[in-house]
Amino acid sequence: MKQILIIGAGRSASSLIQYLIQHAKEGEWHITIADQNAAHAEEMASIGADVAKGVALDASNAKDRSALIAKHDLVISMLPATMHLDVVKDCIALRKHVITPSYVSNELWALDTEIKAAGIIALNELGLDPGIDHMSAMRILDRIREQGGRIDAFESHTGGLVAPESDNNPWNYKFSWNPRNVVLAGQGGAAMYIRDGRTKYIPYHKLFQQTQQVSVPGYGDFDAYANRDSLKYRAIYGLEKIPTLLRGTLRKAGYCAAWDVFVQLGCTDDSYKMELGPTATWTDYLMAFLPPSESSDLRTNLANYIGPLLTTEVMGKLEWLGLFDDQPIGVDRLSPAATLQSLLERKWVLGPEDKDLIVMWHRFVCELGGKKHEIHASLAVEGQDQRYTGMAKTVGLPVAIAAKMVLNGTIKERGVMLPLTPSIYNPILDELEEFGIVFKEVEI
Amino acid sequence: MKQILIIGAGRSASSLIQYLIQHAKEGEWHITIADQNAAHAEEMASIGADVAKGVALDASNAKDRSALIAKHDLVISMLPATMHLDVVKDCIALRKHVITPSYVSNELWALDTEIKAAGIIALNELGLDPGIDHMSAMRILDRIREQGGRIDAFESHTGGLVAPESDNNPWNYKFSWNPRNVVLAGQGGAAMYIRDGRTKYIPYHKLFQQTQQVSVPGYGDFDAYANRDSLKYRAIYGLEKIPTLLRGTLRKAGYCAAWDVFVQLGCTDDSYKMELGPTATWTDYLMAFLPPSESSDLRTNLANYIGPLLTTEVMGKLEWLGLFDDQPIGVDRLSPAATLQSLLERKWVLGPEDKDLIVMWHRFVCELGGKKHEIHASLAVEGQDQRYTGMAKTVGLPVAIAAKMVLNGTIKERGVMLPLTPSIYNPILDELEEFGIVFKEVEI
Repeated sequence: MKQILIIGAGRSASSLIQYLIQHAKEGEWHITIADQNAAHAEEMASIGADVAKGVALDASNAKDRSALIAKHDLVISMLPATMHLDVVKDCIALRKHVITPSYVSNELWALDTEIKAAGIIALNELGLDPGIDHMSAMRILDRIREQGGRIDAFESHTGGLVAPESDNNPWNYKFSWNPRNVVLAGQGGAAMYIRDGRTKYIPYHKLFQQTQQVSVPGYGDFDAYANRDSLKYRAIYGLEKIPTLLRGTLRKAGYCAAWDVFVQLGCTDDSYKMELGPTATWTDYLMAFLPPSESSDLRTNLANYIGPLLTTEVMGKLEWLGLFDDQPIGVDRLSPAATLQSLLERKWVLGPEDKDLIVMWHRFVCELGGKKHEIHASLAVEGQDQRYTGMAKTVGLPVAIAAKMVLNGTIKERGVMLPLTPSIYNPILDELEEFGIVFKEVEI
Repeated sequence: MKQILIIGAGRSASSLIQYLIQHAKEGEWHITIADQNAAHAEEMASIGADVAKGVALDASNAKDRSALIAKHDLVISMLPATMHLDVVKDCIALRKHVITPSYVSNELWALDTEIKAAGIIALNELGLDPGIDHMSAMRILDRIREQGGRIDAFESHTGGLVAPESDNNPWNYKFSWNPRNVVLAGQGGAAMYIRDGRTKYIPYHKLFQQTQQVSVPGYGDFDAYANRDSLKYRAIYGLEKIPTLLRGTLRKAGYCAAWDVFVQLGCTDDSYKMELGPTATWTDYLMAFLPPSESSDLRTNLANYIGPLLTTEVMGKLEWLGLFDDQPIGVDRLSPAATLQSLLERKWVLGPEDKDLIVMWHRFVCELGGKKHEIHASLAVEGQDQRYTGMAKTVGLPVAIAAKMVLNGTIKERGVMLPLTPSIYNPILDELEEFGIVFKEVEI
């Protein structure tokens, strides 16, 4: 009997737990689900009471954490990214394999030699993004390279959105993951990418203006805004000389133009607390970012400030949020971003009957046999319900399949690993297809 | 004989040293000038060899610093602001009075009780800005309050610029202080002020668009852009309920519109290193910030990107910098801001024959005896030569006069102090007039 420990049983762990429980007997596994909320951990384990149990764990308590890890063969850390390192250090000391869905930090890379010396696997970047993006891109890139092709452009965009059947607001958006990250998206430095051999930099205040249009068969049109650093993927994907490389985030078409109004005003700043007073309304909130004016009319002032970018469609989205209704804000002394978030959390809530949608879209341009080829690969995954969301499936299932591969000895390498080699990405992508996680590839 | 120690003999220490040397015999002072560059310290002391000497000091060496401070009665720290705290801690331990021109940090405020217990004076914010701005504003504010007036608006703007006779470039600007601070000015958070009872926030990317026009008699028209935090001056100046309060920085009219092009492009970002290559030109630099385009013409792309804000006047300023001449940049792998700075340091150099200019302008609106009054107070100080610049005079002379007051026992209070009380600001402002540092006051 192999003992699996999952630390952290949050939103994105449901499909992971479901897969492991369903395969437990066949694999001869027992699963321990550890969470700071014991009742929640037990509830998550209840679908497989004979093979799984829930336990309480404060993952920041080094002694408890280490004692629990010692009793298992494989640890899956679904904790917030900053907490993985302590888990991995325990796994080195106790010689246990470990999987995380998150980006490998510099601190983790620095442990590679130690991890190899301990004879363990530390497999990471195995969720959706990072994760499925790596695997699906590398599969096509490797195929083109095997065929002798030269890759001239690679673009890849991902979005966590709302399924068409649950999409009933003019933003075409609801929160299927951390609202704070959505409000702060794109901050902390320029976005960097490469186009036709020129490295390009987009400052935050231009990010939602410089979008690309992407069409996904069956799901319509999307805006893609550039992710923070596309340049590092040249090295990761072996595309050092590629003239065009861009990774971005997808929103439904029209979202970015409206979101840009908040960016232009400064509403997404999280660096200071506003003094609005306890009775302030959303009009007061917006007026605080507008220059002094003769007019006291918010619409007039906003139109003067934003200019032609404030289209009827954009105004429609802002009005739907209730920003012009003179309603009280209800929070005070928060940052502009946190104040806005308090409104969006009410308006963009993913209801109990709502389903989410994951969209990923890759574009490859290559020269093969003297001819230019363009390939588009797209993925759309809808959530099943509130628990088994598209996000939970696409984050959790690759982790679960990787866990199976670690436990049955398929993975021979040791050390810090990413799913960039065919021996890892092929079995995972193949099995994901059984769950409806299938890329549609077309040549243009 | 009183022993004065000046730590740090940089650009802004020249007038301070000159004053102290000239008054040394009368005051029975001896002055030690300590700098990391011993030759420079000796050279600065040479104008008063009988009363002053230069010594080498690495101010980060705690033992050397403390040993030197122990031999003196008053310490004047002209070090970079981050280094004052160590000096002040030594002064507490050794019971020596200390003066700095810089803003009081939270860490320094926290030492107030200790400083009082040691029976010493720690007098700060005594340069130009902070310094002369506090003193000149408080003198007028206190006068209005004494007369029973109600203060409805206070605006205060300061600029370190180039004197009209040395002003021969279309930006009407040369570096009279730290170029890096000029390039990064306004970054690190929104500017905050209050207008007609509404607190207003300006994000960095709008800062150089939301300027005010200021006219200074004899010196023409200026742009004022808002400083980071005007709100805290409500408490400092006793203006808790004031409906309009704004502090800003002055540039000659037209500068901000042109600088805004750099901000819009992202050229002032200091958070990442650009990959431009060793042979890149300034065209490549600007193109890196422009979105992909059918046109390879820089002027066309820039005009499309910036829009109507790219006036002929603005283009003239950019062209004068040589940005369109296809000249090599000459530096590589620096941040956008540092790359731009390398150009500006050549173009905006304050030459050996050039004189700088300090401009300060206050505006007060008050109600007095049922009537509205508006008072403007302006200061313009030109440099004498490269050593005795306007900046050195306005930063150093208030410090020097305060040093005299500390040594002759005029200041009875102990603890962390700012020059906000008449007993401190009146003698300093009065004596500054002897040096041509005179505010012109007009009622509008």
